[in-house]
Amino acid sequence: MTDLLLRNVRPMAAEPCDILVRDGAIAGFGRFEPEPGLPVEEGGGAIAVPGLIDAHTHLDKTTWGMSWHVNNRPAALRGRIDFERDNRAAIGIDPHRQSMRHAIGLAAHGATHIRSHVDIDTTHGLSIVEGVLETREKLRGLIDIEIVAFPQSGVMVMPGTVELLDEALRQGCEVLGGIDPCGIDRDPKGQLDALFALAVKHQRPLDIHLHEMADLGAFTMGLIFERIRTNGMQGQVAISHAFALGMNDYLRVGALIEQIAELDVAIVTTGAPSVAVPSVMRLREAGVRVAAGCDGIRDTWGPWGQPDMLDRAKVIGMKNGLRQDHELEDVLNIVSQGGADLMRLESYGLKEGCRADFTLLTGETLAHAVVDVAPRPLVVKGGRVVARQGLTVVDMP
Amino acid sequence: MTDLLLRNVRPMAAEPCDILVRDGAIAGFGRFEPEPGLPVEEGGGAIAVPGLIDAHTHLDKTTWGMSWHVNNRPAALRGRIDFERDNRAAIGIDPHRQSMRHAIGLAAHGATHIRSHVDIDTTHGLSIVEGVLETREKLRGLIDIEIVAFPQSGVMVMPGTVELLDEALRQGCEVLGGIDPCGIDRDPKGQLDALFALAVKHQRPLDIHLHEMADLGAFTMGLIFERIRTNGMQGQVAISHAFALGMNDYLRVGALIEQIAELDVAIVTTGAPSVAVPSVMRLREAGVRVAAGCDGIRDTWGPWGQPDMLDRAKVIGMKNGLRQDHELEDVLNIVSQGGADLMRLESYGLKEGCRADFTLLTGETLAHAVVDVAPRPLVVKGGRVVARQGLTVVDMP
Repeated sequence: MTDLLLRNVRPMAAEPCDILVRDGAIAGFGRFEPEPGLPVEEGGGAIAVPGLIDAHTHLDKTTWGMSWHVNNRPAALRGRIDFERDNRAAIGIDPHRQSMRHAIGLAAHGATHIRSHVDIDTTHGLSIVEGVLETREKLRGLIDIEIVAFPQSGVMVMPGTVELLDEALRQGCEVLGGIDPCGIDRDPKGQLDALFALAVKHQRPLDIHLHEMADLGAFTMGLIFERIRTNGMQGQVAISHAFALGMNDYLRVGALIEQIAELDVAIVTTGAPSVAVPSVMRLREAGVRVAAGCDGIRDTWGPWGQPDMLDRAKVIGMKNGLRQDHELEDVLNIVSQGGADLMRLESYGLKEGCRADFTLLTGETLAHAVVDVAPRPLVVKGGRVVARQGLTVVDMP
Repeated sequence: MTDLLLRNVRPMAAEPCDILVRDGAIAGFGRFEPEPGLPVEEGGGAIAVPGLIDAHTHLDKTTWGMSWHVNNRPAALRGRIDFERDNRAAIGIDPHRQSMRHAIGLAAHGATHIRSHVDIDTTHGLSIVEGVLETREKLRGLIDIEIVAFPQSGVMVMPGTVELLDEALRQGCEVLGGIDPCGIDRDPKGQLDALFALAVKHQRPLDIHLHEMADLGAFTMGLIFERIRTNGMQGQVAISHAFALGMNDYLRVGALIEQIAELDVAIVTTGAPSVAVPSVMRLREAGVRVAAGCDGIRDTWGPWGQPDMLDRAKVIGMKNGLRQDHELEDVLNIVSQGGADLMRLESYGLKEGCRADFTLLTGETLAHAVVDVAPRPLVVKGGRVVARQGLTVVDMP
């Protein structure tokens, strides 16, 4: 039973008040007196927001906390995938240790929930998933981790992968992943038919990486829409990246977004700085669920990124050309409520009755907090303090 | 006479050695014994690089250190310009105080040189320039500031501006600025003829803001090239932003870059996240001088940015899709040597005989330092320690 009295915070940058937590849930906002046995924290007038959510990352890939990984390999997507698969063990990227570091880093920066894609391939079988499942158990109560069974190396080009995905869903992966049915798998019908069949069999949602751009990505989206309709999977499918929605064709993108909204497909963005990305504002205006993630951080693919969803909000805001305060508030919503909408989290939010998952932010206003990316004064998960000033109560391995 | 013995640093991430400074200049690299009266600093094995250079900023505009400026004004470029001009005084953006804060912030983050565009318009006359000139004097020895007389509100649309620019060049501005001869000034021939005449009269270089994109920007670039040839100003002109070079037309951009290289025009980029920008790698491959700047930070135009050229290197690297270590080293070169090439700085560099302007960086490698953006352990200007761990020896006003 976790109780807490958090004094003097500004929920969503509103007037200061206290937050009372009973049994891990938010019992009320107002002014409360200390009670014997009730832990008290002083909020110092900081902003309180619901826990940040990294809705698209790869906990199993990072070199975070390891020595610097020198990368002078020119490589397109397929080359990066193959290099990583063939060298990750030799480089020392232990899936359990590295996912611990990555997830603890996210918690330190105010995240309370993660959706992580985790590699499944015929080289490693389910061993990488097992490492991340171990992390999930160890960090229970600190941060919630949802796992996507992710065929990083492809499905049809790697026979045996469908069986591995099937097994992964049996073993506790909540979501089925996919990747570039054309670009990576060379057989869009084959991959999508196989994935939708698996999703239906296990009654699991789908979250498909779609780096394919412009016409190619639009074609693949069409195939996905057809299968959502055929299988009655409205509201059950997410498309990550969705770079095709960044193409410079207003009407065509509008037609795609119309179907995305109609079929309640969620879009997960990382605000990828060097390519055309979907406009988060346009998607939100159309009523589409929009979530966001840090994607891979400091891995064999590239050096960028850090385990911090507030930093990612900044990347997304800058990439989308957002400057106004209310727009920055929207981006903060994307890296919090947006993830909850994607993952269909119940009792998420900074409201009475919701689970006491929240983080304090430093700043005069919400927009100021997004721009400053200062250390989080306090992170609370289920009423338990899990981090102070950027340091978690558990150590990184 | 400023002497210094800096022990145990890694110049450009090479093997550890000491750096000996005599009379404000680098006297040697190696192992040196302490001498009576010779100040000693311990470098702790940090990387040493030449001082960072912010080659495009606006010291007079920032709200840094002021209370958060709420901005819910939808505004295109002209609207931002007009709002700022008409409201900067009322908002309390004192050019001297704010340029002090901005410049000290840059020094704290390892910058030793700044090129700042400073607004000149018929509302404020030269009063804004005077505030920044005062900052330049006060910070002499801490950071060098070069001032561009910048007609932010336009030249031809604001009669009287040419005379103000003329006077500003007489009063100590080293460079003449310009802005969007078509988009802002509505009279490209008029503006460019006037600016080139002024530049020739004062024998000063030009640095022209060119936000104009695609065909429009390419047209304006053509007009600039013609006037460089006519006036023999090869090597004397810089184009800032140069968004037209970001257009998706490989051959056409190549033809523009060919002339840029031939006329030795420098390109100054900010890696603007939300628009198409020039490829820094392509420009460097063509032998073009490429510098970079933070642009305006936290001003009435928008909330983003901070006074840190290492952070800007990261923005530029991410925007340009750079992932390899050698590419990140190139970006570090752009935010240091690139600025020196733009400003034609003599005795700049981490070499014997050069001025002792350098900063220490934390990281295993140069690429690691660019990605981490950790506080700078030590910043040295002319042999004098001006900042430690992100804090300057002078306080912000």
